[in-house]
Amino acid sequence: MAFVNENYLKLKAGYLFPEIGRRIKEYQELHPNKKIIRMGIGDVTQPLAPSVIKAFLEAVNEMGVKETFKGYGPEQGYDFLRQAILDNEYKARGVDLFVDEIFISDGSKCDTGNILEIFGHHNKIAISDPVYPVYVDTNVMDGRTGFEKDNGYFEGLFYMPCSEENGFVPQVPKEKVDIIYLCFPNNPTGTTITRNELKKWVDYARENKAIILYDTAYEAYISDTSLPHSIFEIEGAREVAIEFRSFSKTAGFTGTRCAYTVIPKTLLAYDQKGNQYPLNPIWLRRQTTKFNGVSYPVQKAAAAIFTANGKKEIHEIIKYYMENAAIMHKSLLKLGYKVFGGINAPYIWFRTKNNMKSWDYFDLLLNDINLVGTPGSGFGPSGEGYFRFSSFAERENVIEAMDRMKKLG
Amino acid sequence: MAFVNENYLKLKAGYLFPEIGRRIKEYQELHPNKKIIRMGIGDVTQPLAPSVIKAFLEAVNEMGVKETFKGYGPEQGYDFLRQAILDNEYKARGVDLFVDEIFISDGSKCDTGNILEIFGHHNKIAISDPVYPVYVDTNVMDGRTGFEKDNGYFEGLFYMPCSEENGFVPQVPKEKVDIIYLCFPNNPTGTTITRNELKKWVDYARENKAIILYDTAYEAYISDTSLPHSIFEIEGAREVAIEFRSFSKTAGFTGTRCAYTVIPKTLLAYDQKGNQYPLNPIWLRRQTTKFNGVSYPVQKAAAAIFTANGKKEIHEIIKYYMENAAIMHKSLLKLGYKVFGGINAPYIWFRTKNNMKSWDYFDLLLNDINLVGTPGSGFGPSGEGYFRFSSFAERENVIEAMDRMKKLG
Repeated sequence: MAFVNENYLKLKAGYLFPEIGRRIKEYQELHPNKKIIRMGIGDVTQPLAPSVIKAFLEAVNEMGVKETFKGYGPEQGYDFLRQAILDNEYKARGVDLFVDEIFISDGSKCDTGNILEIFGHHNKIAISDPVYPVYVDTNVMDGRTGFEKDNGYFEGLFYMPCSEENGFVPQVPKEKVDIIYLCFPNNPTGTTITRNELKKWVDYARENKAIILYDTAYEAYISDTSLPHSIFEIEGAREVAIEFRSFSKTAGFTGTRCAYTVIPKTLLAYDQKGNQYPLNPIWLRRQTTKFNGVSYPVQKAAAAIFTANGKKEIHEIIKYYMENAAIMHKSLLKLGYKVFGGINAPYIWFRTKNNMKSWDYFDLLLNDINLVGTPGSGFGPSGEGYFRFSSFAERENVIEAMDRMKKLG
Repeated sequence: MAFVNENYLKLKAGYLFPEIGRRIKEYQELHPNKKIIRMGIGDVTQPLAPSVIKAFLEAVNEMGVKETFKGYGPEQGYDFLRQAILDNEYKARGVDLFVDEIFISDGSKCDTGNILEIFGHHNKIAISDPVYPVYVDTNVMDGRTGFEKDNGYFEGLFYMPCSEENGFVPQVPKEKVDIIYLCFPNNPTGTTITRNELKKWVDYARENKAIILYDTAYEAYISDTSLPHSIFEIEGAREVAIEFRSFSKTAGFTGTRCAYTVIPKTLLAYDQKGNQYPLNPIWLRRQTTKFNGVSYPVQKAAAAIFTANGKKEIHEIIKYYMENAAIMHKSLLKLGYKVFGGINAPYIWFRTKNNMKSWDYFDLLLNDINLVGTPGSGFGPSGEGYFRFSSFAERENVIEAMDRMKKLG
């Protein structure tokens, strides 16, 4: 008799974003003529940059000619892309890494989920609340938690509540934890972490031989030059951190698929007896066994964002989205909302009016002004009473959305 | 203290193909002027078909224009591709499926590895020997085995030895197993399974509520019309089978990356109390949580193989490889080798000369005639004394390789 992984049964019926999609579809079917503006799922709207398209097309053409055709590539990615990342994203900021510490993948969602595979089940895992739901769900699916409690927390996870009081930045815990998820600029709250605050985490991890899983998918949206783009800008982080980055939001690759994960060779984990093992070769073994690398033309397309023209084009697109964020930030403040994020991050996080529950507010916005955002409670119990807008929209839709918010009052 | 997944420590140092790559690199560095012919890793050499390139380019161009740009797609794949697969690969052979039973992915290696996630750890898992190493390694990595024994078998797995005596087709076990990996046309032996033999497996699975993981990555190489291309051609299979298919070998997508997995809605697994759960929605939950779908242009490229021109072009490429296989088959027989496969599969499987150990034979061929194949023992203990050649090579290389084999004597 084939047995199911019963951990899946502990999960709520749907992952947050499909649930949003379901409600939109239901509404749209009943009201086919209504124009819904979507600022819920953090999906980009601007096309790939011209330099990216050019490189993408060239690489596809290479695939049609015997002499330049590419079969299996290295599972960990082509060196032309790894080197371009190293030079432009790290060395340019004074961070030195080795090329073989960078693993190209088809998405940070995959990587942040799959990374758990190289860790034992004895780890105490710390997660912010609110948080990107994938961190929690993948832990549940992998049997690293008990059941969900009445308060919305899963047994066995160590939650770090984030609120207006702590500026949505989790504090270093007083007790010992082994693996810590951090995401800055933060999804969903759009908040950032200073070097000093991040240094506290690195020091904590070094002291406790813990590992930080640092998700910095939105680093390209940082404009404040004092803020760190990479955890490896912090001294000692090479011993205690894995960093996840993506081209999805940096270069509009949500439908094209390319990301990368950095695992320094100096990063160690331990067996039950306390023997130490570098994780870089273990992740390499994972990737070579369970992954076949990213499509060659996609890797070529990604590398093009590091050309002189590519950089300029990407910068313009990011600027466009951040102007959207500024419009929303200003409009919502004016309407009396308590607003966070949106300055060094593409997400606007705000308190609902009259302390409405997040999903009630979702339904209100969908039904009354045909506007879709993301309910804060979908990111965890501490997100209840908040709402998220994404700035990855068309300008005209952002303006219209803010007009509709004004009408809502 | 962060703990490593100690199951990784049970694995041999390297996955088979990276080890082959390492030995080639070492030899080539010492002998830079030698021309090595590679028939080891089953990687294709012929470029993508013109129809595929055309659709690929068109889709890339769509990504550069706001009106046709695509962000996040459905994690389970676009319907245009799922429908094309359903119509051409299944309905055309009299197999009826639902579109939402087909999940598009970036590779069968990923899927056959990841599929374990939806199964509990109590399952007794049956694996052929020799076998595609990913099946065994992913079970080890996931803690579904004990340690490797002296005979090369991992504790806790149920091995089904395949040999010349049983035509390299595993026999239905007398005891109960819960999950069964089958791969036909087989990698590495190139052998096939008849409808009658496959029916025995489906009946066994139905009787024991077991599940068959059916890997048919090489089905496009079947020329014998009596052989099944899909397990779903067998009555009752919709209740007991998951099928894995890939565009890698069918259409030269090893570097482009696209595959799919079929999980019928009627397929059930059980909890410890015997309650039943359909696996289709559980895999959907897995994919929506841990995967972001295949690159849109890649899906468009894959769909093009189902156009009239695409079909013709793909057929020509497959014919080319199978002519390679025929040349090798004939040559090796003539040289006195005992040869299997290569008729309905792109792999030639043969006994080494003088019962040499597989890796010794690998080194002999590499050093003496600069020819690379795959050592049979790399696929499991029962592969010892065998060797695999892949027919995915250039014709001139195949001919030269056979000349070199002749010289080796």
